[in-house]
Amino acid sequence: MIADKLIQAIDEKKNPSVIGLDPRYEKLPQFLKNTEKAKAVFEFNKLIIDSIKDIVPAVKPQSAFYEVMGINGIKALFQTIEYAKKQGLLVILDAKKNDIGSTAEAYAKAYLSKGTGIDFLTITPYLGKDSIQPFIEVSAKNNKGIFVLVKTSNPGSADFQEIKADDKFAYEYVADMLDNAARQHTGKTGYSGIGAVVGATYPNEASKIRNMLLKSIFLVPGYGKQGGTADDAIECFDKKGYGAIVNSSRGVTFSFRDNPSKQEFCADIKTAALNMKADLHAALKRADKFPW
Amino acid sequence: MIADKLIQAIDEKKNPSVIGLDPRYEKLPQFLKNTEKAKAVFEFNKLIIDSIKDIVPAVKPQSAFYEVMGINGIKALFQTIEYAKKQGLLVILDAKKNDIGSTAEAYAKAYLSKGTGIDFLTITPYLGKDSIQPFIEVSAKNNKGIFVLVKTSNPGSADFQEIKADDKFAYEYVADMLDNAARQHTGKTGYSGIGAVVGATYPNEASKIRNMLLKSIFLVPGYGKQGGTADDAIECFDKKGYGAIVNSSRGVTFSFRDNPSKQEFCADIKTAALNMKADLHAALKRADKFPW
Repeated sequence: MIADKLIQAIDEKKNPSVIGLDPRYEKLPQFLKNTEKAKAVFEFNKLIIDSIKDIVPAVKPQSAFYEVMGINGIKALFQTIEYAKKQGLLVILDAKKNDIGSTAEAYAKAYLSKGTGIDFLTITPYLGKDSIQPFIEVSAKNNKGIFVLVKTSNPGSADFQEIKADDKFAYEYVADMLDNAARQHTGKTGYSGIGAVVGATYPNEASKIRNMLLKSIFLVPGYGKQGGTADDAIECFDKKGYGAIVNSSRGVTFSFRDNPSKQEFCADIKTAALNMKADLHAALKRADKFPW
Repeated sequence: MIADKLIQAIDEKKNPSVIGLDPRYEKLPQFLKNTEKAKAVFEFNKLIIDSIKDIVPAVKPQSAFYEVMGINGIKALFQTIEYAKKQGLLVILDAKKNDIGSTAEAYAKAYLSKGTGIDFLTITPYLGKDSIQPFIEVSAKNNKGIFVLVKTSNPGSADFQEIKADDKFAYEYVADMLDNAARQHTGKTGYSGIGAVVGATYPNEASKIRNMLLKSIFLVPGYGKQGGTADDAIECFDKKGYGAIVNSSRGVTFSFRDNPSKQEFCADIKTAALNMKADLHAALKRADKFPW
């Protein structure tokens, strides 16, 4: 079961973090810039994966940064997914998909079929429960998972997510809906493949949602560059220090020194990933939730 | 300006309808099935475009049905966009994109840059105003447009879109936000490139949103197979019969007789598109809004 698999991978690495692969050609180190954009991006991702594969359980490519490079970029995305998979990492594709009926089903089949290499897909909820159902069904059938946006990390997340009716915010309605579904699909760890996106930048809300959504693993953006601290992110974890995976993208993948050699680049990426792990460990310990 | 261009194209064809290109290989006519899936789908789309190009102003490929075929499917999507463009049609890419900050910007650049062949992109609003802003900026710069989901056509659209706070539904908060943006980007026709998706299946809500969003063109799903009638869809038009474009996908593209020849297929598609035009004309006349 995919939730058990993710928690097992977190346990093996003793690290509840995921590295976001959001490449931008302009920002790549010089030594990678002597080839076609999408190829350079794939090389960049390979070096990152090689550097962090023994440290983190998962990577999260962000589809936009590949789609912006056109068909070759999308190929680089698929190559990245395949490479990460081969290196033993779980793959969360961040594409925030959604639509209705047979269209939602087509998206679900596109990304959550067996053999795609993708373990989890991110989903937006505005269209309603019937739009999420096909993703739940296809993922359950193929032992894959989803992360549905509940409370996002950006400043504008309040605009619609915090519309309040009958003393409940819109994001709580989304959480309730997910909770009903998650309870029907739990594994040995008590967690479900139906997860939630909850930003580290709103720790009070995260703590509230944690208590509402006991069966869902949280994918936690907003740590690092966006301003969320490890202590903020830790609000997304349960009392035993499980149930969440914290994302860092730029904070790790663009942490390298100016004009690095290949070795320096890999060393810098590795150091950043280890620093993030240590940061999360320290926060888990401060919160008396450290599980290892 | 893109809104003026769309209204001009509607005027030229005297037809406020758009044909959704949502191909499914299994349902293609037999004469197209002797080749690779994505190639067959592109041939299917070409025949449809050839059959309807003198009748409708625009087509709307739904990205999911191409993505589900993998990289070749995505190529077929790009080929379809290019072909439709060459035949003088406007192209609305239905991909319901969204994300935050620089990621939203990457999506906007991927699809709304000059030279993509895409005139409009559909957007989901759950992430808030700051997530929509990059799409507004990139589209305004490149003379492209967006359609943001306001009130969708599916039964589950009430789940989150109708959360009510201070006597206003969530979809009205989205509409207000769009209206503010649309008023800053209007063309000669008084309409803006910042449009809204409003389903034909909820005519009362559509009528209310029409009165709230005076500067936005509505992309109207839900007509035909989903149960919305032409009279329902007409609630999305202004008093002069402008400001909306009604979509039909399956109702036109899978309207052909059993096992048709190529000529019969094209004739059936053409007939269905003409019937839809006549249906909308009759409803516009009944509502005393017929502009031609």
